[in-house]
Parts: sequence; C-alpha cells; structure tokens
Amino acid sequence: MPREITSFSNSTVKFLRSLRDKKARRAEGLFLAEGLRIITEARDEGRLPEVIAFGPQGAAHPLAREIIDATEAAGGDAILTTPDILSKMSGKDNPQALIAAYAQPDTALSSLDRAKADLWFVGEKLRDPGNIGTILRTADAVGAGGLILVDDCADPFAVETVRASMGAIFTQAIAQARWDEFLGWLRSGPGQLVGTSLQTRHDYRDAPYAAPCFLLIGNESQGLPADYEAACDLLVKIPMHGRADSLNAAIAAAVTAFEVRSSWRNR
Amino acid sequence: MPREITSFSNSTVKFLRSLRDKKARRAEGLFLAEGLRIITEARDEGRLPEVIAFGPQGAAHPLAREIIDATEAAGGDAILTTPDILSKMSGKDNPQALIAAYAQPDTALSSLDRAKADLWFVGEKLRDPGNIGTILRTADAVGAGGLILVDDCADPFAVETVRASMGAIFTQAIAQARWDEFLGWLRSGPGQLVGTSLQTRHDYRDAPYAAPCFLLIGNESQGLPADYEAACDLLVKIPMHGRADSLNAAIAAAVTAFEVRSSWRNR
Repeated sequence: MPREITSFSNSTVKFLRSLRDKKARRAEGLFLAEGLRIITEARDEGRLPEVIAFGPQGAAHPLAREIIDATEAAGGDAILTTPDILSKMSGKDNPQALIAAYAQPDTALSSLDRAKADLWFVGEKLRDPGNIGTILRTADAVGAGGLILVDDCADPFAVETVRASMGAIFTQAIAQARWDEFLGWLRSGPGQLVGTSLQTRHDYRDAPYAAPCFLLIGNESQGLPADYEAACDLLVKIPMHGRADSLNAAIAAAVTAFEVRSSWRNR
Repeated sequence: MPREITSFSNSTVKFLRSLRDKKARRAEGLFLAEGLRIITEARDEGRLPEVIAFGPQGAAHPLAREIIDATEAAGGDAILTTPDILSKMSGKDNPQALIAAYAQPDTALSSLDRAKADLWFVGEKLRDPGNIGTILRTADAVGAGGLILVDDCADPFAVETVRASMGAIFTQAIAQARWDEFLGWLRSGPGQLVGTSLQTRHDYRDAPYAAPCFLLIGNESQGLPADYEAACDLLVKIPMHGRADSLNAAIAAAVTAFEVRSSWRNR
C-alpha cells in the first residue's frame, strides 16, 4: 500500500525535491523522471523507480497503477500525495501526475558494450542539459548505442536532460570520461572517430563512414579544439548555405548521424 | 554622445527590461538582442538598433564602438550604463556587454518574397521559443528563405528565440498566419508542401522534392493534425531505428531540410 503524504515538510518530499540539484543527485546516485510516458518507457526497458510519488490523478490511471504496484513489489517506495506537493517537487504550476526517482546507471567507460551498436555519440564539453537530452533522443532514433560525455559536460541526469530525452535516457548507454581516457578506450578496439569541421575537403554526404562509428560533437559555442579534430580518423563538412558558419550542436550531430546510417543502407 | 545612466529606476532601463515580456514587445513593435556577435550580424544585414545599452566593457570594443556610433548617427538612442544595470536588464548575473532593441519586421505573409528562395520552413503550433530559434539557425544554414509560423506559435521575437537563432533572426524572413490564410497564400503560386509523418511509404531519402519546397513542422508534442497532413503534397518518413517514434521537431526539420538540399545538388 502506498504511504499517503500531505505535509510539505515531509522528509521524502524534501528528498525528491532535492534531486533537482546536481550535488544531491550525485550524492544519492539517483535522478528524477516525470510523467507517465517516460516512466512507462522506463518500465518497458525493465527499469523501475526507487521512489514514485503521484497524486489522485496518477493513482487513477491503470498503467500508472501497474507501475506503482510493480515498484512496491520490487521493494521501492510509493507515495500518494497532493497536487500542491507534486507542484512543489516539480517546481511547476502544472506538475506531471507522477514523479519518480531512478538509480543512476554506472557511467564508467568499462561498462559500455561497444559490440552492441555500430554507431555511438561522443560529446565534448556539452554545457546545455537540454541539448544532451535531445542528442540522446536522436541517438535512440538513429539506432545508436549511447553517448559518451568527455571532459566537463553538463549532468546527463539533470531534469531538463531526462525530459528532452523523451525516454532515451533509459534506452541509451551513457558514459563519462576524460578525453585521454576516452581515446585510450577507443583505440583499444575497432572504431572510427568522426568529427564535423570546416577545415576539411570531405563533404558529409560523400564520406567513407566505417562501423563502428563514433561521432564526436564539440562544445555548443567553441566547437572542437584543434587537437581533438587532429585525433579524428575522418573529418566531414556540412555545407553552410547562409551567413552562419555553424549549426546547433544537436542539429549537426543529427544531420551527420542520419547520413552515416543511410550511407550504410546498401552495404 | 551616448547618454550615461546609473539609476536602476531610469525609464529607459525599465523600458528595455520590459521587452523581455511578450506583451510589451508586441505593443512596442521591438525585440531584444544581446551580445556583440549577434548585434554585428544584424549590422552586416544592414540592421541597426533603435536603442543600444552597453557597459564600459562594451564601449571599449572597437567594433561595438562602431555600431554605437552608427546607431546614434541613424537617430537611435545609445546608453552607457553599469554592469549591474545591464544585469538587471538581461536578468543574468553575467550579462552580455551590449543589449539592443530592434524594430520587429512586418510578419504579414504578403511581405514574403517567395521567389527569393527554393526552400522555406513552416511551423505549426511551435511552443518552444528556443526551438524556433534553432529552426531559424538551421534555415539560414540550409539556405532557406524564412519561417512561416501558423496558428498559435510561441513569439519568434522572444529573447530565447533570438539567442538560439545565432543571428538568423536577422537573415531569415518571418511570417505569422492562420492555417487557412497560409494555405490560400501557398496555393496562389508554385510550392510543394512537405510534411514528415509515420503514415507514408515515402522514405525521406527517396522522395521527389520539388522547388520551391515548404517544409511543414508539427507541434513539439502532438505533431501534425491529420487534416494538415492531408493538405501536404508529399509526406515523407524518417525511419526510426530505436524505441522512440519521433524526433525533436527542430531535429526532424533539419534532417529533412538537408536531405532536400542534397537531393537537388545534381539537378
């Protein structure tokens, strides 16, 4: 039976609320997901929350009910609360009917199964959590294995990342590493490192992409450092037809990734 | 000579600050752009602000100085102020060194020059200002003419839109219209209306795109209504390789637009 909580000062309310903060997420090894859709996607991937909070509306939905029951059966904590308290936890006037806390997966490079996919994303100093979520969503759509975040990226378990990922936070592997650590790991097996650059003759439409392909995405405003470009096996250029000399990082990654996937269609 | 303003309660400070709000932007017919980069892009497109505010740092930069002088020469208002007041106007701790207010262009459909470009974006009920800015940035990169916003979209002159556009707010035409108004305008001349959909056999890589092409982008969460899809001349499908059944709206638009552009390369 779910516990019922009606007090704003309840410690579980405060605990869930605290997970909007990166430090608390890291300390607890948890992250938040909000809404029936993403919580259902998690369940479909075999993932249940450690804690799930819901209002009367959430409790009334059969699918939500099923996940709440499964969470309790697995030893998780289920909390029936008020819309006002859900608002407080989500920081929104119209909160989702469910808020759940999940265990963060292991993000060590060694936890990646590189044989699992022929396409991977690598992000360098990505600062915008929403961008990281959008890249995860794209990675899922293009059949990638996951996203490796190198150097000092935004937290992939931020609320904005989880939301923008539209469930891909549960389907894509995520790793975090320093650049030299990543390069060592990459070179320990097969893999073509591909960067987008203006300094190359290779048009992205006619480039010899090889599997497994690791698409390197540079920081949103600076792009890739010169020595990171130099470490790539292949640099490709997306032609710019207007005044701008660059695309949004998530857009450039998507355009390149769909091209890689298409170029392999008739292999 | 720029006026010097050191009071938070100065009416011009309040006026610029008010332009962060949609109602004030509409009433005044102005919008804000922040930072030397975008203000320089505007100047390169022949656009000068009505009002420009800057701190000592902004005043010291030769390029900024040039734009400030040009603004004054054109009858605009130039204001030297303090970093604290710039902070208040931008709502940020580390504000850009310049904040400028520009006249909103005419967004009537009749103001569009459809012969200007062979590719246009059409957004339906786009709710996220950042998404609209990213689409403008992509539109510029792919050599489109502009973005037509149909039905109830977010304000294309929001601060978040301008920022995400990376200057494309000044290079891309923007129109706003009701759907039936847009369709009437579209059918009054040549133009292929293209939508992305899961309900079609046309793979986006093998579709007969025809110029001028109007790419229709549906709402971020609902996608296109069925009757809007039915109005399209061509529906194309981007294959989904993962669990998700859709892409971020700006990503789907970009992947399709770059495909359209490439498919025309050997015409």
